[in-house]
Amino acid sequence: MTIDDAAGLFERDFESYVKALTTFLSIPSLSARPEHADDMARCAAWLRDRLTAAGLEADVLPTAGHPVVVADSGPPEENPDAPTILLYGHYDVQPPGDETLWHTSPFEPTVRDGAVFARGSADNKGQLMTHLAALASLHDAGRRPPVRVKCLYEGEEEVGSPNLPDFVCAQADRLACDAVLVTDASRLSGGRPALFYASRGLVYKEITLEGPPHDLHSGHYGGAVGNPANLMARIVASLQDDAGRVRIPGFYKDVRRLTAVQRRWLGETAPSDAELIEETGVPALWGESRYSSAQRCTARPTLDVNGWLAGYTGAGAATIIPARASAKVSMRLVPDQDPRAVSDAFDAAVRAACPPAVRASVRTLSTCAAYQSPTDSPFLRAAAAALATAYGVRPALAREGGTWPILPMFKQVLGADSVVTGFADPHANAHGPNEFFSLDDLKRGTRTVLAFLDHCATPSAMK
Amino acid sequence: MTIDDAAGLFERDFESYVKALTTFLSIPSLSARPEHADDMARCAAWLRDRLTAAGLEADVLPTAGHPVVVADSGPPEENPDAPTILLYGHYDVQPPGDETLWHTSPFEPTVRDGAVFARGSADNKGQLMTHLAALASLHDAGRRPPVRVKCLYEGEEEVGSPNLPDFVCAQADRLACDAVLVTDASRLSGGRPALFYASRGLVYKEITLEGPPHDLHSGHYGGAVGNPANLMARIVASLQDDAGRVRIPGFYKDVRRLTAVQRRWLGETAPSDAELIEETGVPALWGESRYSSAQRCTARPTLDVNGWLAGYTGAGAATIIPARASAKVSMRLVPDQDPRAVSDAFDAAVRAACPPAVRASVRTLSTCAAYQSPTDSPFLRAAAAALATAYGVRPALAREGGTWPILPMFKQVLGADSVVTGFADPHANAHGPNEFFSLDDLKRGTRTVLAFLDHCATPSAMK
Repeated sequence: MTIDDAAGLFERDFESYVKALTTFLSIPSLSARPEHADDMARCAAWLRDRLTAAGLEADVLPTAGHPVVVADSGPPEENPDAPTILLYGHYDVQPPGDETLWHTSPFEPTVRDGAVFARGSADNKGQLMTHLAALASLHDAGRRPPVRVKCLYEGEEEVGSPNLPDFVCAQADRLACDAVLVTDASRLSGGRPALFYASRGLVYKEITLEGPPHDLHSGHYGGAVGNPANLMARIVASLQDDAGRVRIPGFYKDVRRLTAVQRRWLGETAPSDAELIEETGVPALWGESRYSSAQRCTARPTLDVNGWLAGYTGAGAATIIPARASAKVSMRLVPDQDPRAVSDAFDAAVRAACPPAVRASVRTLSTCAAYQSPTDSPFLRAAAAALATAYGVRPALAREGGTWPILPMFKQVLGADSVVTGFADPHANAHGPNEFFSLDDLKRGTRTVLAFLDHCATPSAMK
Repeated sequence: MTIDDAAGLFERDFESYVKALTTFLSIPSLSARPEHADDMARCAAWLRDRLTAAGLEADVLPTAGHPVVVADSGPPEENPDAPTILLYGHYDVQPPGDETLWHTSPFEPTVRDGAVFARGSADNKGQLMTHLAALASLHDAGRRPPVRVKCLYEGEEEVGSPNLPDFVCAQADRLACDAVLVTDASRLSGGRPALFYASRGLVYKEITLEGPPHDLHSGHYGGAVGNPANLMARIVASLQDDAGRVRIPGFYKDVRRLTAVQRRWLGETAPSDAELIEETGVPALWGESRYSSAQRCTARPTLDVNGWLAGYTGAGAATIIPARASAKVSMRLVPDQDPRAVSDAFDAAVRAACPPAVRASVRTLSTCAAYQSPTDSPFLRAAAAALATAYGVRPALAREGGTWPILPMFKQVLGADSVVTGFADPHANAHGPNEFFSLDDLKRGTRTVLAFLDHCATPSAMK
């Protein structure tokens, strides 16, 4: 292996990387809180300085929100045609929540039981630190990275990355790459590392039905006036059948079916029905009977009411016909559903189901396509080999039921597929109290990044 | 007429009755506000003293809430077999609401433009004053009432009369009567007085669906977990068809159909479809196509969602499967639906529509039967004749779409039907700012009460 020197120096200097991580974690980079704008800027500058010290050309670039840190190693001298890998991460963190639930202060990182405890340790600073450690070790060994490495570290992931798409579009040349490495996921429960080759998309809607201009007396008018809440129930119910199958015309038209091998992978990684019931606490599972619950959670599109409100919701009774009713309804999409087509079909279905007794309006709150990477790319194989070496176990190929908007965005804007993995413990309390990142994962993660970059330089070796 | 003397004295002393009414109205008898308990007691005592002064044996009797004022004239000496009429009214008033909207202070009664403006003037103190004026005028004329008169004036009508049923049960002997006169309604729009011979009942339910013990990530679990809000929509939608017809088994079994004459009466009193649209501001009417909107508002049972709540209802998007959903659903009933049977059938229909993926519970918040009085009783005819004389126009026979729980309660406990009318202007702003009762209605109302009592003494004269 050509990176042995760097790996050796990383082991030797491990304590200094732990120290650097605690410094990184001590900056309260809370993107959601305007009063932390200075901390955000300080954190971005710290990151730029680390990347500069590792020999990259690094910059802090502004956005309409918090800044983005970008860096570029330039092409390797001995291998100018090597591919370019874009490393993605984020330096912002979730608010700490109820601090009384933390055993140690969220922004005073503490090492105990082989892990560092702090807000942002798992999500995403500890995982981002593996990039910094790999790049710094290579630099200390007097080596350029074996591939061209670019970095894209945003400061708004925890608030939905509102400015990232525009930023990537504007900086598309600077960020041009052959593949993206995203280390913002977790290992699977049980601890096995995974490569996530698919995620679901999202179309999020808000339906409003308006009847009378103000609430009416249900005794005086009940029976002759369309009740927005009754009619909302009818409309929402009309969008789905008893078994959860969506009845919007054309909804399933472009749904890509799982291949036999993908079904096998799902069987390896997904919880059983009993585990799913245990995990969620529901009385029984539900959904399209022709598909396993594992498929329904990751490979089938859905329609869920996320919230609704109408009329009187306090204690006791109020005999009113509410003036309006609203419902937030979102659909998870799978490859190859077109979010725009689904969005339009949803609006048309609502309008078709709405009687003239109320006025319906539908707002689109967000749309995002599903994502699926090739599962036979050299970059995915490079990552699989690197994880297998670092963790001593072949990584799983997994599907994510949630939505990762950066993946289709990178594909669309940069033309690059993403390799998505994560080193964090699946029970690392990301977004909760006492979040942690284990020192063992810092080691194995850094080894993974080093090996991944090395394998990407000689992709033929992975075939 | 045997009551001419009394009517003459009433005209002569009219100013003193206006003054008494302003005294009555100046007491802020707000049943909803515990800090007004002393005012409630003072108001009840004032009422008892007026009844005593009019020659009745009157008492203030306690309840678990505010006291009730009862009175009894005893049987008329010259006609000991005359029927007994129970006069019903209430001395409590609604809170004044936003006092800046009042042109004069709500508890400083002001006479202007031929009306007295004050909270409670129309609802119900001005109308109750017609009883007091009739009884006092008879007394001043040296006469006992021509029938036995009992009074029942409660202090909790504006808070739902929670203690009245128990009170009437406990005092059933003391309150025994042949008919009840209720003057707590209004004249119809256009000004014509009405006798309300029917009101709708009510069964009010709250459905709760519980799925997971806490909100779930809709990406991780959507498709495999029953969403309480989606399923609430299905359940509520299953209770009714597209045209508003209720699909609960047996719901219409006991519904009494209108007779030809009742349909004619409805045509005389109900607003047209165009008027109903104007009045409510809805884009279009809605409901069972086989029935006119007038029938649907008063003579057909309904099912309305009064409120519902689930999940995230703030601005923007939250991608959750809510842990629970709740809906308040009420049904207006018509004669001869049995509230208990409807209540049980509703619960069974909800349970039948609920899949095992969620736990359903249904609470009953209130039940009340519909009411319909005979339309050929001597008491109704007596009231019709009295109103016709006092107002110079034959009263309409009308149905109320709302629910008047005292009517079936009097029928059940006392075995007596009610004669329901009202002297107040239909736009008297009851419950709103600048509530008023016109002096003309005080005159005509008092004449109506005097004539009604007189006619009841000789019911054969009405045939």
